Amino acid sequence: MKTQYKIGTIASHSSLNILAGARDEGFDTVLYVIKGREEFYQSLDLANELIILDNYQDIFSQYSEDVIIIPHGSFVAYLSLSKLMDSNLKLFGNKDLLIWEHERAKKELLMNEAGLKLPKDFSNQEEIKFPVIVKYDGAEGGKGYFIAKNETELKDRLNTAKPSFIQEFIIGTKVYTTYFNSIIRNRLEIFGTDIRYESDVDTQIQLHDNPAFQIVGNIPMVLRESLLINYFNMGKAFAKVVHEKLEIPMIGPFCLETVIDRNLDIYTFEFSGRIVAGTNIFVPTSPYGYIQFGKNMSMGRRIALEIREAIESDRLNEVII
Amino acid sequence: MKTQYKIGTIASHSSLNILAGARDEGFDTVLYVIKGREEFYQSLDLANELIILDNYQDIFSQYSEDVIIIPHGSFVAYLSLSKLMDSNLKLFGNKDLLIWEHERAKKELLMNEAGLKLPKDFSNQEEIKFPVIVKYDGAEGGKGYFIAKNETELKDRLNTAKPSFIQEFIIGTKVYTTYFNSIIRNRLEIFGTDIRYESDVDTQIQLHDNPAFQIVGNIPMVLRESLLINYFNMGKAFAKVVHEKLEIPMIGPFCLETVIDRNLDIYTFEFSGRIVAGTNIFVPTSPYGYIQFGKNMSMGRRIALEIREAIESDRLNEVII
Amino acid sequence: MKTQYKIGTIASHSSLNILAGARDEGFDTVLYVIKGREEFYQSLDLANELIILDNYQDIFSQYSEDVIIIPHGSFVAYLSLSKLMDSNLKLFGNKDLLIWEHERAKKELLMNEAGLKLPKDFSNQEEIKFPVIVKYDGAEGGKGYFIAKNETELKDRLNTAKPSFIQEFIIGTKVYTTYFNSIIRNRLEIFGTDIRYESDVDTQIQLHDNPAFQIVGNIPMVLRESLLINYFNMGKAFAKVVHEKLEIPMIGPFCLETVIDRNLDIYTFEFSGRIVAGTNIFVPTSPYGYIQFGKNMSMGRRIALEIREAIESDRLNEVII
Repeated sequence: MKTQYKIGTIASHSSLNILAGARDEGFDTVLYVIKGREEFYQSLDLANELIILDNYQDIFSQYSEDVIIIPHGSFVAYLSLSKLMDSNLKLFGNKDLLIWEHERAKKELLMNEAGLKLPKDFSNQEEIKFPVIVKYDGAEGGKGYFIAKNETELKDRLNTAKPSFIQEFIIGTKVYTTYFNSIIRNRLEIFGTDIRYESDVDTQIQLHDNPAFQIVGNIPMVLRESLLINYFNMGKAFAKVVHEKLEIPMIGPFCLETVIDRNLDIYTFEFSGRIVAGTNIFVPTSPYGYIQFGKNMSMGRRIALEIREAIESDRLNEVII
Repeated sequence: MKTQYKIGTIASHSSLNILAGARDEGFDTVLYVIKGREEFYQSLDLANELIILDNYQDIFSQYSEDVIIIPHGSFVAYLSLSKLMDSNLKLFGNKDLLIWEHERAKKELLMNEAGLKLPKDFSNQEEIKFPVIVKYDGAEGGKGYFIAKNETELKDRLNTAKPSFIQEFIIGTKVYTTYFNSIIRNRLEIFGTDIRYESDVDTQIQLHDNPAFQIVGNIPMVLRESLLINYFNMGKAFAKVVHEKLEIPMIGPFCLETVIDRNLDIYTFEFSGRIVAGTNIFVPTSPYGYIQFGKNMSMGRRIALEIREAIESDRLNEVII
Repeated sequence: MKTQYKIGTIASHSSLNILAGARDEGFDTVLYVIKGREEFYQSLDLANELIILDNYQDIFSQYSEDVIIIPHGSFVAYLSLSKLMDSNLKLFGNKDLLIWEHERAKKELLMNEAGLKLPKDFSNQEEIKFPVIVKYDGAEGGKGYFIAKNETELKDRLNTAKPSFIQEFIIGTKVYTTYFNSIIRNRLEIFGTDIRYESDVDTQIQLHDNPAFQIVGNIPMVLRESLLINYFNMGKAFAKVVHEKLEIPMIGPFCLETVIDRNLDIYTFEFSGRIVAGTNIFVPTSPYGYIQFGKNMSMGRRIALEIREAIESDRLNEVII
């Protein structure tokens, strides 16, 4: 299939995943690269068109209407959220979710309403059950998070100047589960599970009392099949609540960030309403993608497949909102 | 190839792996799903036939003779072992090994006779060399295991009411190696190696003195090529002893569960005589599967390939015993 | 393409990776196997020709000129470096780099000149900033390395009889990044990133005060895309310096061994000037290999592709030096 539409994104985060997937589905691609990063992206010979930007805001003037833009985790970091909302960019997915994602109260509302089990929020509590994890607003990639095992540690490290979020720290195994909610096929798909590789977590020797949580990359995993069913149900419930509350369906990729404790209870401490970098490990395919499609299926390709099927069935307006 | 035979299994453990592999080899598939789990399995659109069971024992009445059943780790948990043995189910593999697997003494006999190095069994010893790991009979998925670093810890935590197994705890790196013993091609194949991802093992912070070993999933790895040869020899020796002692060959998938210490000595602390969930990470292929076949080869596909070649050479009776 | 050339290597380290990749590119293959290891390699049915050696030095007499040899990490361990240099073996890659790799001062020179950030070398220093890692010359696979957190630990464990190397220990996350520098396509490619799995690093329980670093295998990972660009630039700079200092370009695979600290500063503590075993996890493909080629690309295949394109463009002399 050749269409007049191209698939484009900003060169960062999961852009290689997105573009390689678009290529697999027969799309021409456009990559918007900030000046200084072009040598790497040119060397890959992946994008059909490479548009170099002096600053990220220039995407709004450089944009042409035949390009469907796939937003990823770096979008809101690079572009002003309000400009993004007001722009004429054809953004794949539920744009409003980008706004909800940036307000903690709204996030918690969605997760709670979906019946997900959340770690307790002690931010405004007198009584705190330790250990806790403290997160500062705007902390990126886990940088600046810290764990306090008791009252003294909390007081010592708490920066009272900054608004913070104090959350029950669940001891267990972190699992990042990525989903694709297909509007065209009318089904929820589990795409993959991964583990974050974080600095300065040194597995050989614990030299730091206060490990940092700076994300460096991702490691693949698969879940026990019995747990997979739990995650499927969690994803279904979450997508349903998003549809109800935002009055726009969940469209395409999202992620539930969880920790499983020793009783196999699953706690969800965060979500992302778009493609996450954890799916990058599953190029050209995740196990679950292969199982569902009988061929290689990366998250980038899954997005492009949805767009292709939307175009072919004249339903593009249902996935670009 | 189209045959009158279908491949079937119970929806759990590694059923997605098994069914996707059967599909890759051109088989129609049947999935037996317990009521309440069907929505997830239906959504995958993977099985040709989905039979919903009110309880697992109903498989015996719902079963039709053109289905070759692939037993996995949840089979014996769900079905009574004696009923399974007496049934007319066409089970792929060496059925007797399912029995041997459930008696610790028989398991140890097989591993010892194969010349594998085992951690010491201190269950009936006066003198114990610490640390030890204590396992309770019937503990599933590692739940309830604990480590004792000294006599005091052992006494404090030992539940004397339950029969237990006290084993030398080898400090090292755990490696789960999966094999396929092919009757039709008359060779042993190493399929893959993986690591278990266990709760509540938190790599960032060690808050628990007594970590639990609840299995959550699996992570892929490859072995140093020189160690791979050792594992090949171990697998050969083990398959040989199984054949001698049970008077039925090892058929198809099995797993040796090992730990490698700092001197690169390999200790085997457990085996499984059928497909293990660790192979789920290698869909659609493991590195070693690809190396041996020059194309994608998952464990589910390897099983289906063996069955297909058995049918084609009129040797099905040699792999269904 | 059929050529008169075959691709060969010694059966160890990454030979399965190399041979499977050569097969993918249509080459016949030759495997030189030391006596005692042949059963495993024969069982794989991978090499077109399997030459059994009584000792490794016999490769020089058994060698025939139509074979292009791919050196890997075990080559210099098995063969005398000087004999290797003087031999008529057609070695893929920059042979001189094998020599430079064996002298710590030369290694550090290359890494420093490339502008890479190195952990401090305290070998000849009065003032030491702890923790440090102590490495002995000739220690293989990480065996014998140790970490000292303070002066006392250092003195207690230091074996003064052996020449040693005392290096600043950077707390962070280790990342092994593998590259391919293509002479024929005139570009640097990032191939993959992996983590080493080391014994006796037990993630469940820290029983040893002095963990060993014996490499057992490798685990796959992907980097944050923003870090990937840093690694691309590091690889470019390093390849450039090798070319300048050795007056022979970097040819084919190499590896930078790094640790990323909590500020996302990247320290390079080691390099390898040829294929490393970490690439074995990426058979039949790495994510980045697939992204760059739009099809499966393992490191073994990438090497064979370079040789094939060199033959086809009559430039074989540029990659065998």
